Amino acid sequence: MPPVSPDIDAVRQAAVRIAPWAHRTPVLRSQYFDDQTSARVVFKCENFQKAGAFKFRGAANAVLSLTDDEVRRGVVTHSSGNHAQALALAARMRGAPATIVMPLGAAAVKRAAVQGYGATVIECEATLAAREEAAAAAVARTGGALVHPYDDPRIIAGAGTAALELLQESPELDVILAPVGGGGLLSGTAIAAAGVSSRTRVIGAEPAGADDAQRSLAAGRIIPSVEPRTVADGLRTSLGEQTFPIIARLVPEIITVSDEQIMSAMRLTWERMKIVIEPSSAVPVAALLANAAQFAGLRVGIILSGGNVDLGAIRWE
Amino acid sequence: MPPVSPDIDAVRQAAVRIAPWAHRTPVLRSQYFDDQTSARVVFKCENFQKAGAFKFRGAANAVLSLTDDEVRRGVVTHSSGNHAQALALAARMRGAPATIVMPLGAAAVKRAAVQGYGATVIECEATLAAREEAAAAAVARTGGALVHPYDDPRIIAGAGTAALELLQESPELDVILAPVGGGGLLSGTAIAAAGVSSRTRVIGAEPAGADDAQRSLAAGRIIPSVEPRTVADGLRTSLGEQTFPIIARLVPEIITVSDEQIMSAMRLTWERMKIVIEPSSAVPVAALLANAAQFAGLRVGIILSGGNVDLGAIRWE
Repeated sequence: MPPVSPDIDAVRQAAVRIAPWAHRTPVLRSQYFDDQTSARVVFKCENFQKAGAFKFRGAANAVLSLTDDEVRRGVVTHSSGNHAQALALAARMRGAPATIVMPLGAAAVKRAAVQGYGATVIECEATLAAREEAAAAAVARTGGALVHPYDDPRIIAGAGTAALELLQESPELDVILAPVGGGGLLSGTAIAAAGVSSRTRVIGAEPAGADDAQRSLAAGRIIPSVEPRTVADGLRTSLGEQTFPIIARLVPEIITVSDEQIMSAMRLTWERMKIVIEPSSAVPVAALLANAAQFAGLRVGIILSGGNVDLGAIRWE
Repeated sequence: MPPVSPDIDAVRQAAVRIAPWAHRTPVLRSQYFDDQTSARVVFKCENFQKAGAFKFRGAANAVLSLTDDEVRRGVVTHSSGNHAQALALAARMRGAPATIVMPLGAAAVKRAAVQGYGATVIECEATLAAREEAAAAAVARTGGALVHPYDDPRIIAGAGTAALELLQESPELDVILAPVGGGGLLSGTAIAAAGVSSRTRVIGAEPAGADDAQRSLAAGRIIPSVEPRTVADGLRTSLGEQTFPIIARLVPEIITVSDEQIMSAMRLTWERMKIVIEPSSAVPVAALLANAAQFAGLRVGIILSGGNVDLGAIRWE
């Protein structure tokens, strides 16, 4: 088999590149979760990352990889979520113009956040085709560089830096659990773990209502989510051409969890750890709680991917 | 004037005593709050303390101050809030029986938490007289030591250890803002600051609907809150015989804030810092935000007193 791309060296280079820009986020523990699971659990808190999610790592790596000429032409992406804010902030930090295509109906607070970072927002219909078309048009008009939310080696390598830091602090982990949507975080995490720790398995965690990664792995080819339904709004995307082969090769298992399990895990994390995580972050927590026997006695790392929630929209039962 | 009691040495001794038991909580910063206020703000995160609040510091100090004979007879208190859980946990850690008097109508989840720490719960009418009477009866029956929620030098000295740690990490603070209910945290904070930093003023922050501290300071004597009304459930108590004279001597100012300001500050803290704080913790944050001009250019420390909230009961606007 050809080597995985990006490789561990790309993750290491990304870590050096983004170090002056990104937070080295804390790794927290919680007696409660240890007691509940009989595992020894550590949490990598990307909810404390700049712009509130791990996405800043990939966005910063991509923007810092641009030439000065490319910086002048700027960056373009389509995203309604954390990647949009992350890329807008990273672009501003390097003085690059940013054009963000957002679907009509995206939360006003998210559009305001992106504009607050100085980016230009272009609205389009809420279909993948319309988003890609609008982004391509923006690239053609500005000459800017398209920075895909996940299917880009710079994004994957940047995302992997979270696991690299986690394994520096907790080198003995038996398992790392990471959420999977488009697969940027999961593939980067798998590359980082395979590169620095032969003992650490990486397992994906996915909403049952958007289980394209589990089905794609079983089928051996990408099977996109059709009308995904899950409260984990960051995980409705499907694996991409670049993330799928990495995950197929390095990730032995994807665990799925229900929205009810996700919300319960999110509430427990807020209540017990006193930290705010978004539903997507609660997916690997739910996967651990729902499969405690599988992880009993193991050292488990969980990547809490982000903390951007609309508090007013949450209704606890 | 006679020396303040407890004094800085008592706070230092408490810090040594509780070090093996209590978390040394992190001190966090937030660019957002710096930008909003033109101050340089640091947050001492007692929401991450054991049992979810600074109260564990005083409870641990009190329990660790008992003789072995006193430990066998146990501890007694009356509290519906964080002190109840803190004392129950500290007692369990030293193997002491604990009897906690809680008013009828206290949240079931709080009673369950106290019982979960192995304490005996006794219910009584929800008046201060009924609580004190029930606690006195429990002391008479068990021979246990009464550990008052705030009006006790061991509790005050223990509470002061949070500011001691904060000033070790941030020795240049111009101001520390702490919430004030019964005054245990505020008096302990003032003793710690006066003892180690001549430049640091300590200012109290109080709900307008429970402004007994501000009125008591103005009057020069304790004026209890009558039917306090505030969302900050930890701050409905009134200054005590021991806390009032310390605060009168060492705290030059009490700032009051509305419930609307408290809830707004709490929401901003959750959204921007990604940490869960309870309404009482948001009171000094609100005091800072509402008086930004007063603090512009200063180094400000805020003690976030706890993170115990009933998520299901919160309604954001």
